[in-house]
This record gives sequence, C-alpha cells and structure tokens, in this order.
Amino acid sequence: MKNKNDAAKTPPMGWNSWDCFGAGVTEKDLLLNAEYIRDNLKEYGWEYVVCDIQWYEPTADSVRYHKFAPLCMDEFSRLIPAENRFPSSKGGKGFSVTAEKIHGMGLKFGIHIMRGIPRQAVYERRRIIKDGVFAGDIAAEYSVCSWNTDMYGVDANAPGALEYYQSLFDMYAQWGVDFVKVDDICNTEFRPDNPYSAKKEIELIRKAIDNCGRDMVLSLSPGPAVIEHGHHLSRNANMWRLTGDFWDDWDKLKKMFRKCEMWYKFTGGGCWPDCDMLPLGHLNVNDPGETRFTRFTKDEQITLMTLWSIFRSPLIFGGHLPDNDGFTLSLLTNRDIIDINQSSSNNRPLISEDDRAVWVCDDKNGFKTIAFFNLSEDEISFKIPQELIEDNEIHSLKDLWKGDIINCRLCDYCVKLCGHCSKILRIY
Amino acid sequence: MKNKNDAAKTPPMGWNSWDCFGAGVTEKDLLLNAEYIRDNLKEYGWEYVVCDIQWYEPTADSVRYHKFAPLCMDEFSRLIPAENRFPSSKGGKGFSVTAEKIHGMGLKFGIHIMRGIPRQAVYERRRIIKDGVFAGDIAAEYSVCSWNTDMYGVDANAPGALEYYQSLFDMYAQWGVDFVKVDDICNTEFRPDNPYSAKKEIELIRKAIDNCGRDMVLSLSPGPAVIEHGHHLSRNANMWRLTGDFWDDWDKLKKMFRKCEMWYKFTGGGCWPDCDMLPLGHLNVNDPGETRFTRFTKDEQITLMTLWSIFRSPLIFGGHLPDNDGFTLSLLTNRDIIDINQSSSNNRPLISEDDRAVWVCDDKNGFKTIAFFNLSEDEISFKIPQELIEDNEIHSLKDLWKGDIINCRLCDYCVKLCGHCSKILRIY
Amino acid sequence: MKNKNDAAKTPPMGWNSWDCFGAGVTEKDLLLNAEYIRDNLKEYGWEYVVCDIQWYEPTADSVRYHKFAPLCMDEFSRLIPAENRFPSSKGGKGFSVTAEKIHGMGLKFGIHIMRGIPRQAVYERRRIIKDGVFAGDIAAEYSVCSWNTDMYGVDANAPGALEYYQSLFDMYAQWGVDFVKVDDICNTEFRPDNPYSAKKEIELIRKAIDNCGRDMVLSLSPGPAVIEHGHHLSRNANMWRLTGDFWDDWDKLKKMFRKCEMWYKFTGGGCWPDCDMLPLGHLNVNDPGETRFTRFTKDEQITLMTLWSIFRSPLIFGGHLPDNDGFTLSLLTNRDIIDINQSSSNNRPLISEDDRAVWVCDDKNGFKTIAFFNLSEDEISFKIPQELIEDNEIHSLKDLWKGDIINCRLCDYCVKLCGHCSKILRIY
Amino acid sequence: MKNKNDAAKTPPMGWNSWDCFGAGVTEKDLLLNAEYIRDNLKEYGWEYVVCDIQWYEPTADSVRYHKFAPLCMDEFSRLIPAENRFPSSKGGKGFSVTAEKIHGMGLKFGIHIMRGIPRQAVYERRRIIKDGVFAGDIAAEYSVCSWNTDMYGVDANAPGALEYYQSLFDMYAQWGVDFVKVDDICNTEFRPDNPYSAKKEIELIRKAIDNCGRDMVLSLSPGPAVIEHGHHLSRNANMWRLTGDFWDDWDKLKKMFRKCEMWYKFTGGGCWPDCDMLPLGHLNVNDPGETRFTRFTKDEQITLMTLWSIFRSPLIFGGHLPDNDGFTLSLLTNRDIIDINQSSSNNRPLISEDDRAVWVCDDKNGFKTIAFFNLSEDEISFKIPQELIEDNEIHSLKDLWKGDIINCRLCDYCVKLCGHCSKILRIY
Repeated sequence: MKNKNDAAKTPPMGWNSWDCFGAGVTEKDLLLNAEYIRDNLKEYGWEYVVCDIQWYEPTADSVRYHKFAPLCMDEFSRLIPAENRFPSSKGGKGFSVTAEKIHGMGLKFGIHIMRGIPRQAVYERRRIIKDGVFAGDIAAEYSVCSWNTDMYGVDANAPGALEYYQSLFDMYAQWGVDFVKVDDICNTEFRPDNPYSAKKEIELIRKAIDNCGRDMVLSLSPGPAVIEHGHHLSRNANMWRLTGDFWDDWDKLKKMFRKCEMWYKFTGGGCWPDCDMLPLGHLNVNDPGETRFTRFTKDEQITLMTLWSIFRSPLIFGGHLPDNDGFTLSLLTNRDIIDINQSSSNNRPLISEDDRAVWVCDDKNGFKTIAFFNLSEDEISFKIPQELIEDNEIHSLKDLWKGDIINCRLCDYCVKLCGHCSKILRIY
Repeated sequence: MKNKNDAAKTPPMGWNSWDCFGAGVTEKDLLLNAEYIRDNLKEYGWEYVVCDIQWYEPTADSVRYHKFAPLCMDEFSRLIPAENRFPSSKGGKGFSVTAEKIHGMGLKFGIHIMRGIPRQAVYERRRIIKDGVFAGDIAAEYSVCSWNTDMYGVDANAPGALEYYQSLFDMYAQWGVDFVKVDDICNTEFRPDNPYSAKKEIELIRKAIDNCGRDMVLSLSPGPAVIEHGHHLSRNANMWRLTGDFWDDWDKLKKMFRKCEMWYKFTGGGCWPDCDMLPLGHLNVNDPGETRFTRFTKDEQITLMTLWSIFRSPLIFGGHLPDNDGFTLSLLTNRDIIDINQSSSNNRPLISEDDRAVWVCDDKNGFKTIAFFNLSEDEISFKIPQELIEDNEIHSLKDLWKGDIINCRLCDYCVKLCGHCSKILRIY
Repeated sequence: MKNKNDAAKTPPMGWNSWDCFGAGVTEKDLLLNAEYIRDNLKEYGWEYVVCDIQWYEPTADSVRYHKFAPLCMDEFSRLIPAENRFPSSKGGKGFSVTAEKIHGMGLKFGIHIMRGIPRQAVYERRRIIKDGVFAGDIAAEYSVCSWNTDMYGVDANAPGALEYYQSLFDMYAQWGVDFVKVDDICNTEFRPDNPYSAKKEIELIRKAIDNCGRDMVLSLSPGPAVIEHGHHLSRNANMWRLTGDFWDDWDKLKKMFRKCEMWYKFTGGGCWPDCDMLPLGHLNVNDPGETRFTRFTKDEQITLMTLWSIFRSPLIFGGHLPDNDGFTLSLLTNRDIIDINQSSSNNRPLISEDDRAVWVCDDKNGFKTIAFFNLSEDEISFKIPQELIEDNEIHSLKDLWKGDIINCRLCDYCVKLCGHCSKILRIY
Repeated sequence: MKNKNDAAKTPPMGWNSWDCFGAGVTEKDLLLNAEYIRDNLKEYGWEYVVCDIQWYEPTADSVRYHKFAPLCMDEFSRLIPAENRFPSSKGGKGFSVTAEKIHGMGLKFGIHIMRGIPRQAVYERRRIIKDGVFAGDIAAEYSVCSWNTDMYGVDANAPGALEYYQSLFDMYAQWGVDFVKVDDICNTEFRPDNPYSAKKEIELIRKAIDNCGRDMVLSLSPGPAVIEHGHHLSRNANMWRLTGDFWDDWDKLKKMFRKCEMWYKFTGGGCWPDCDMLPLGHLNVNDPGETRFTRFTKDEQITLMTLWSIFRSPLIFGGHLPDNDGFTLSLLTNRDIIDINQSSSNNRPLISEDDRAVWVCDDKNGFKTIAFFNLSEDEISFKIPQELIEDNEIHSLKDLWKGDIINCRLCDYCVKLCGHCSKILRIY
C-alpha cells in the first residue's frame, strides 16, 4: 500500500474552473487554461487542471445551480460527463480523452465530485455495482447538502457503500484522474443534530483511492474544517478547506489570518490545510451580472499571495488564465515566492493581533524569511521581532516581491506599511 | 371568516392509530376502534378517530418506515390512500367513505399528514394544481425530515405553494376530515443552520384550512415546540406538541411536568398545548418484538391521566381500544376527571420541585381542585399549600379517582403518597 | 399569610431615579420628584417614588460606578443610607423620615437593592444578625455581579442566609418601604457554568417579604428574564424585566415588541412583565456628557407609551419630572391610555411581523381597543384584522391619543402610518 | 532576550505536592520528596520539586480550600510563604532557603501561583510596587476564580498591571524559583460572557518572566485549554493543561486519548501540552477520608505511563514519593520509557477509535516505536498497521515494559491485549 502523503509532497499548484466558469465549464475551457499553463506557468510548478462541479449536468451554464436537474449517469449510478459540454466523453469514454490531452502537455488532471449518490438514481430505482444493491439501499436520506440537490449522502454502514465508492474511483483511475476535490464533506460538524455521514464517507473515499491503483490528491471542501478533527483529516486527505468559499473580499482575507494561525501546525508531510482558490484575474467569465476582474487591489493581491505562500496553502488559481494581465501573471511567476510556498519549513506566526500579523519561516537554504502584514486601514510600522535577532551584525534583507536588497543591522530595520499592505523579506 | 379556535373549544378527545398500529394501520382497524368508542366512550366525550402516518404507502406494515417507498398520489401530486389498505378509497373516493361511516357513528374523523410535497412527485416531474407549476418548483430541497423520506418541505415563497396546500385541504374537506395532525412541523428551531420552512408552512396550512369550507382541528407534531414561538402557535394551531414522542416510560412522564409548568399559560381558548397520545392499553399490536400492554404501572397511569387532565392536554388514546381491560377503560370513563380536563379554569402549578409537583384549578362549579404528584421514588407527605387555605372551617375533600370523601380543616389535611403516585381532590 | 399578588393588583405606576440621577441621587432629588407627582400626576394613578442604586455609597455621584468604594452598613452587615446624601437618615433612622414625607403626600416609597451581602462586610469580618454567623459564611464567593463590585451573592443553603434576608426586609418594613427593586437577579441563566444563586435568592426574598409584616411590590432586574422560568417568576415576583436596560433608542424599542409577544400570557393577576422605565423627559441630569432630553421623537414616544399600555407593563417614569415639558406631561396624563394600562383585559398581539405589529384588548367597559404599530422606516397601511370584524354595521372609532372619533364600517377602515408611528383606537 | 523554549527543551520531569498534600503542604514535605528524588530518581532525569497552592495561607491544612482565609503578603500586595508552614521563610526570606537546599541536591524548585492580585489586598487598600497605585486599581473585579476566593484577576490594561506582575517574578527570581505553575488561567474560554482577563494576563506573565533575569518553566492550569488558542499558548508557555484535574479514574484516562489526538501537533520545541500530574503511589496523605494508594490497576498505570510518554507530556509525579512501593518506583525508572518521553520524534496517533488507540514515534536512534492501547473492557487483537510495514524481512520487536524481544515479520505480528491494557514495542 502506498502512502497517501506521497501524492502531494508539496502544496499542489494549479487551476480550478469554479471561480471563472462556475457550474458551466466545458471541455474547451479546460483545454484553453491547460494550454496557458503549459506555455506560461508550468516551468514554475503549476500543474493541476481541475474541472469543478456539475460536469455531469447537461443544462449547467452558470454559477447558479439548477434544482433537481437531470444528470448523466451510467448503469451503476455513477455520474458521467455531459456529452454536450464534454464532447470527447462520447461513447462512454468519460474524461479519458481530456485527461490524455492534459497529460500530453506535461500537466495533471483533476475533477470535482459531490460526496454521495445521485438522488435521481434513488428515484429511478437504479442499481449500483454490487449485485442486488440499489442506490436507495445505500443512500443516507437525511444527509443532504444544504446548497445542491444532486446527491444523498452514502450510509457508510450499508452493504454496498464501499463497493459504490470503489467503483467511482476505479472509473476515475481508468480515466486518468490525478486529483479529486470532494465537496459537501469537510465541515464535519455541519449538522450536529444528525448522524451526518461525512466522517465515515471520508474514510470510504480514502480506502477507495488507496485501492484504485492510481495516485490521486484528495482535496476536501468546503470549510470550515474543525480543528478537533485535524488528526482525522491529516490521516485521510491531502488538502482540506479552512473556511467557506473564499472570494475577492478584504474581510474574508483578513479572517484567513486567524484560520492560518489556528491550523499552521497541521501543514507539511503531504497535508496542506487549504485557504481555497486564488480569486484573481478574470472571474465569473460567463455570468453577465458578476463578470469582473478581481476586486482585490494590487496591494491586497500581494498580501494574499504572501499569506498563501508562507502558510504553504495549496495554490490553485481561480481566474480564466488566458485573460490574465501582466500584473496577475507576475504574481504567479515569482520564483522566490513560489519557493517559499513549495520548500520552506518551520513556518509559523510570530505575532497575531487584530491589526497586524507577522509570520516567519526558514527558506529552502535555511535563511529566515519574514512576512509583515498590515491588517488595519492605517499605516503601521513594523520591526523585526526580538527573538529573531541573534547578533548585532549587518545583514542583507531581500524584498521578495520587489527584488531589492538593503543591508542593515536587524535591530535597526523598520518599515512602514500602508493599510492592507504586506512585505516579505529574506534575511541573510 | 370563522375563528380557528371554534374548532376546539375544549381539549380534543379521541383515538389515534400510531401507538397501536404504527405506519401499518388499515381501514378495518379504524372502524373497529371507532365502534368501540361509539359503544363505550362516546358518552364521556371521546369523539375523534385519527388515522396516523403512511396511509398513502401500499407497503407500510409496521412501526418501521420504508426508505424511499413508492407512494400513491393523484395527478396534482397529492397523496391519496393506498387502496390495498383502505379499500373504500377505490375509484378516487379517498377517505370519504370511511369518514362517512365514522360520522354515522356520531364521531369525527381525522388524518395525519407530513408537511411538504412528495419527493417522488419531484423526481417523476409531476405537476401541482396550479397550471405550469411542477412539484420541483415548490420543493424546499434542503428542508427534509430527519426520520422519514417521503417529502420535501414546501418553499412558502414559491409561486404555487399556497395553491398546493389549498388543494390538499380542499380535498380533505371534500372527504369529510375534521382533524388534521401535521407532522415534521412543530419543532421550528429544529435546524437553525438553515432556512427551515416550517414556520411559513404553518401559516400556509392555517390559510388553507380557513379557506377550505370545513372546520378542522389543526394539531402540530412533533415537539418540542419552543415557547418563544408560543404566540405563533397560538395564532395558527389548536394543538402543538410539547415534547418528542411520548411513550410508556416514567422518565418521559416525569419530564412532562417541567414542560407543563413552562406552557400552562398558553392553554385555553381553542389552544391546547399537547402532552401527546396516551400510551395505555395494548400497544404496537402488530409488531412481534414490541407488542405489549403499557409498561406504566397502575399508579403511573393514574398520575399520567391526572396530569393530562389538570393541565388540560388533549386526550388522545393510543392503544388498540377493543383490547382494553377494565382498569384501562376505567381511566377513560371517570366523569370527574374528564370534567377537569374539559371544563376547569385557572389551572396552574403551585409547586414544582425535583421530587414533587402540586397543581390546582377551579372546577366547572368553581370548586378548587388540587392534585398532588410524587415524582420521586420514595414516600412523600403533602399538605395543602398555605395560599389555598382561606379559613379554619371544616371542608369536604373528594378523591376524584377513588370517589371517597373526607371532612377536615384544610390546615390539618396531610397525605402520604408512594413514589410515582398522585392524588387529586375537590375541595368544597 | 397574604397573597403576594395583592401588592400590585394593577401595573405599578411611578418614578425611579436611575435614568435621571444614576447612582448619585439624593434625598432632595427624591422629594422634588415626589412633589411633582403629588401636584401633577397623582390623580392619574402615579404613586411610587423609587430610589435606585448606591444610596449606601457616600461617594456615588453619577451614572458611573466606583470600583470597591466604601459602603455604609450597620452592625449586622446591612447597607444603610449614606448620611451625606440622605441627611434625614442620621441617627440610624435609615429611610424612615423620607418615607414618612412621601407617605404624607399620599404616595408610596421604594428602594433598589443588589442581591447579596457586601463584599466589604466579608473582608471586615463582620457578623450578620444570626449569632455566630459572619458575612463570609453566607457569601457565595463566585456569584458576583458582572457590572458592580459591591456584593457577593448569598448561598441560599448556608445557615443564616434566610435570617440575613429577613433582617433586611424587617428593616425596610420598619422604614416604611412599599416597593423593592432587586437587581442582578432576574437573568437567571446569566452564568450557566456556575451554581448561580439567583433563583434561590429570589425565593429567600419572597419569604422575607411575606414575613416582614408590610406589603411590598417585588420588582426584579435586570433582564432578559428567560421564559422557561416564567412560572417561577410569576410565583415569586410582581414585576420582572424582559430585557437589559432600556434607553431612548429605536432599536431597543423595536426589539421590545418581540419580547412583549413572547411574554404577554404572563401578564395579569399581580404579575407584570416589565418593559423597564420610560426614558422620557430630562435624562442623566447631572452627567455633563450625557444629559439630554430623550432622543425619541414625539412619534416614537407615543409608540412607546402605546406599547407599554396595551401590554400592561409597569409605568415607571425615568426623567427628572420637574423638567418635563408640556408634551411629556401630556403623555402621562391621558386617562384613556392609562385606563388601558390599568384596566384592560384579554390583551394580545394579533400580528407580529418584522415591519409591523397589531395588538388588541378589551377595555374596562368591554370595548375592543386596537393598536397599530409601524415598525418600519416607511409608510404602511393598516386595516382592521378580519377576525375582529363581526358585523357590517357602522361603528365609532376613537383615536385615544388625538381624541377624535370617526364612524365607519370596520371592513372599510384603513389608516396609513408613517415609519415608527402608531395609533390606538377604541371600537364601539 | 532569551528564548522561552530554552527553559524546557524536553518535557519537564519532577514532583508536585498537590496530589499528596493538597493545600496543606509544608517545607518539610518538600524536602522529604526532594531527598527521595535525589536518592532514587535524579539519575533518570527527574528534577523539579514543585510546591503547589496556598503556601501563603497559614491555616491551609488539607485538600479543601478555606473561603476568605487571611493570607500572608508583603507591603506591595505580594503573597509570601506562611511562616508557620515554611519556617525558613522567616525574616522575609521567602522560599530562598528552601530553593537553596533543593538546588544543593542538584534539583530544581518550582511554585504554584494563582493569577491575579489578592482580594484581601484590595479590601485592606494596600498599594502595589508602582507608586500611587493600589491593589483595587488593577483588580479585574468580575474576573474571579470559580473554585478559590483568594484573588481577583488583574486588568491587563490598568496602569501598574505589568509592574505588579514584574514585581512578583522579580521576587521569585530572587528566591531561586525555576518553575512556575500559574492557575486559573489556562481555560481561556471559561467565561465567554465576560472580558475574562486570562489571555492578557498570560502575556503579562510571559513578559515578566522574560525580564526577571532567571529561566523559569511556565506551566498553565487548569484545562481544558482550547485548541483555537494553541498558537497563543505555544508562544507564551512551556506547558498547558489539556483537561481539568486528572485523577486515578479510568474514564478520565480514556478521555485523555481524545485530547492527545487533538493536541499532538503542538508538542515539541519547548512546548509540552500537559496531561497533568501522575496520580500514582500514595495520594492525599493527610486527608483521612481520601488517603489511598492510586485506584488505577497496574495495567492501567502502565497504560497511563505509556500514553504520557509517547505523547511527550510533562511527567510530574503526584504521590508522596517516600511511600512508593517497588512497582511504583519501577514505573519511573524504565530508561526506555523515559527515553521515549524525552527524546522521541514524529509522535502521532495512527488509529483512534472508541475501543482502541495506536500511536507511533521514532525513538532517539531512529527506530520506530509503536504503542497499542486497548480502551475497551474486552480483549482485543492488534496488528501492526499496514503503513508501518515496509518490507517482508524479519524484525526484532522489544517490549519496552517487559524487556523481552521477539523476532518476526511485521505482517505476522499479532498481540491480544486485555481491557485497559497496553503494549509498547521498539521495532528494529
């Protein structure tokens, strides 16, 4: 048996379709973004191309879900791609052609699924892969998602439950899937009044991946994950979400600091507490009322990228990549920043106040790297905390975003940052 | 427009099929119990014969629900009786023949419904009575019952929601229904994380009854109702449950005292906070593992009947009436006790401690009536509370269960009661 | 034994010093306000003059408390008036001279106390009235007030606890006190992590009043009282607060409607759920930063008085009475309004929505009286609810604030009210 | 500035007086236990001798606290040892003589304090070290301990607060204190209704230690600490309690597994989440009703020591050491077990079910060490989890408690353990 942590030795980097295409993503969208990664980002480590929710629904077309929409499924109650949106899936080929193309670009392919079994399969009295077992037999009828009508949860104790999940992941392995984002499963205290099946379903999914014959990153959504279950998540998943959906909103970004401070001990070794996709660049492309470039200011975008990097969150870009401007591209191609995300160690908060945060880590060469974050609206001065000052010598401080270097004694360094701004320095 | 309180000027008295037949009750069972009431109980005020849950499910046969079982419904997504269990419903007659027979005995007829619209109707893409509206359009997809898979809640704001409920109650009025117990609707804070639709559905049902052209008692289940919504319940319903299902278990009986103490101010004027059915006599008749005579001792049964009476709860017998023994029948035919339930006033707790309770009321003739309850395991002495003693004269005290009368000064009266025992006295 | 409800057969009406003088009230302030009542309000039913908190603290001078300030007490750890502020208390006379003067005006006298025993008495190792018992022996050391440092709660089970409370109320009876507002005692779920002693202390206080030989209204503060304890409060007190301190703030007034809807069943028969003092007229007289005329608009003041009246709350004026303007005085001298407060019955909400409320009652002559409240910011139209319309005849509708009468059929009546406005009509 | 983590590079090992002497410990008791450590345990790493609560109270004599007892303090409101119990403290010498003696044995000395300032100092209107500031000025009057009446919390924002705490730790440094257990401070969500000052007081204490000129281990009590504050605790303390007081009770031991699973990521680098003292040997020596040898069975004692070791909890013995029997001593002198506690890495739970737990770590030589725990009442079989099996070779497995070695392939190993039993194996 393989170690599940080998599937994600560093924080996964890639792109996900949700922030730009919502439920309406198509095969063409996936390939366009894959090509952009191949041509612009692959050399920096970006590799996953992830197709988010509703690929099995022919009518999906925007960020809004369709209540009780008909879904495409096979004889064993397994959802399969809608052929009108993913033409290469015709003839029962599922995502295998798409995956092959993406693999051909030197990239990896991921999909999103909802935990559970389609409600439609229950009412059509369909069977699952195990002989004599019907969808209704393994459905956990009260374990329903609060925001999507497609699925019932699976009763992990029902005969056939594991076989059903195994049949899913066997199919995904056959398609060539490298990454699975499972949704409606991470906030395991979501409905305390009820035997919510998520915890057990996570375990079933872990087993199914372990036995499917292919490495896959397991990413759990949505948050907030509860830290009391940190060990369970560490044992079973590679990524898990710390909050509900993250968007281009300063309040959400500010609150993420508190979450990172709570979870940083769980980062590393194939486990990557997940701050969610980067809502940067061109968002909600096909939704007339919502389409926009990210609402974050440039300063806030740098703050966002700096936190995700020094916390070692997965980096999954959310915007439509071909529409990137130069600034957005520059955020994704700074080798110093990506190195911090991929290769630093001993990452931890030093200061966490209402108006500021300071994080520190050791970079891959053992140099201390320190990030100052001004979380307030006003200018604040930052100094290097006493505990990082070991001598009275002159050091070099490299600003990892700007690239400039200054030389000074650490105790003399002082920087003023405007509201919402940040700075990350390598000390050597 | 009529006043909804006129439908239940005194606490409703009758029989309900759940405690004896579970989900498997048949037309024959209803008529057998109706005949028993006609022959033995009607003269004491017992009148409602209520058919509980799953009468629309052909396969229902016990206290256990069948997940995702097929249900009988008409062209407008309205559930109708299963013909195999209710033969007189053939030919689209619904419950009208049964109701007619029961009315012919001088009694009244009631049914149970689950709030909402059948999930089956959603997945079969059925219409409702309003043109162009489908079941799925008014279904509140996340508002599901925790213990039964039949229905989705109704989104009260969806076009067609009121029309759907009106079409239900119009049909019930046509059948001749006098009493409707609506389930999965009373504990309105059941799922605080979600826009649970119950409160709005109660209002829709109120309107539908007001406009259906027939008086119907509206009974809401299950509890616990929350007292912060006491006004809303008072405005809309005739009965509402104070707890989850009540069974023959001393702990549940003991806890009911605390609930009665909390709710007694809401009793009267067509509003009857409901302690639930009387689990007496022969219970779970057709369930081999559960069939039994009530587990309550005789003392506990008297305590139960005394509390239900002096609190003025509805009195709905739960056992299979034809199997009653003499003691059970005697509990239902004590005119003094029934008078307290039907006609007393100013009912209130005087003492409510962990080990005891004392309640008092004025009977229909204005005589004080006092009930002593020993809630502990040990013998306790009771005296008449000081505030009820207005003079130093000799009074008569009639024991309403035993019928004997003693004469004494109130300040001298003292009675010892064994654990779980009670006594109710008229003072005059 | 007397019935505690006889002390407050109708909602108490009077004046309290807190809203105008805070902790710094003096004997002179009390008498000035008493004289105003004698001359202007007594004929309308206003009678109580209540001295609020800190009368035992020589240094109290404003709305702000002094942490750990020295207090005046007698040999038995009982707090007594500070002589510098209440000169007539010299020579151990306590409040007896003040009470006598107020009684001489035909009015009644009340005081405020904090539950418990002075912390100072504990640390000075003082005795209580019971031989051999010290203050520390009955102090509940963890049962402390969250906003005032004067007292420890009393451990109701400690020997001497009842004797201590009895000694307090015996002294108050000797002084001639008619009304006691006990503070830090009403929100009995205040500190769920701890054996908070308030519930038991309420019972001790009830006993002490019953045995002190003088009728006293018992008023409990602060709220929010919890309705699960409604019976306990009804059994022991005459008034209890529904919320935290009420001030001249529309949001607080709007929220009071929800509280009244929750509690109206508990009103009557000597029990008066309490909406708190009327923050009208000249408030915070001696506090330079806070002194003001009420911030409520005239419309809001009428809404306030209408709600307090039709809910039958106690009416305790909070402003410095001698500074009243004509409008303020007019609010207190409308005989129709005061009659509704003092003598109506069957008071209840008919409609309670986010944007509006409608209440109804029967006045002392049996005429329906209806109040419309616009709780929104915008104009709203009100009609008479269907259930109050019994015939198609012409009725007279008297506007109780304006005094004018219109004649119409009830089904035809319609009134538009501006945001925050209300109207109360007698129908005959 | 020093790094606070240097004060506890490995989990502290030692003895504390609470479990054997309660509040009544004396100088003589401390020295007797110190001598035992010197003679029997020092060579295994045991070094701290910690004097627990109430050393400043002359009347303390048992495990029960005395409400409002007079305390000994100096001119600056600092508590000092009661001379009758700690004779060497006469003449203002505090604990310096005792500390010197213990240092002379090659051991270290610790004390317990309650956070805050004596209530007695407030009521005696004493000053603190800062000119013009009185105890009452820095007391947080509502921040009181729920189980001890000695102190008020300190308002961290009050002028003088830091100076007060600094004056305490300066005195302790002068005495020669090496370890401070601060109580009533760790469960920082203890009273959510109130601005509980604990979090800020932790920071004040951290500063005071950093500036006192002497290394001191900072240990926080009681638990449960909340994991959302894990970072704050890591930043400021060396040890913090995971639960309320731990005693010789299997249920408490079983629940500790869930706590260890939650907190294991926070262990290491000078931070030692604390499972509490070891309630072994002779407990409650001077309390006639409670004195006993530990109620844990031998199997349970081994389970306890195994968990504390593989979780790397501090090891602080609670019994009166001179009364140890051979078995108890053997638990403290197993070098393999102590090495796991002091020098292992990568410690983590692999399995955490209701009935069992499996933990693993790497020992100081890099060998895997695995512990099996049977948490049920019945016999259970354990195998080595698949993920630890890297080859099919023969390995040696040393049972660290029994010392015996067996050789087998890891996949073949299987052991049955009785209820409450455990086993810890080194694999090499």
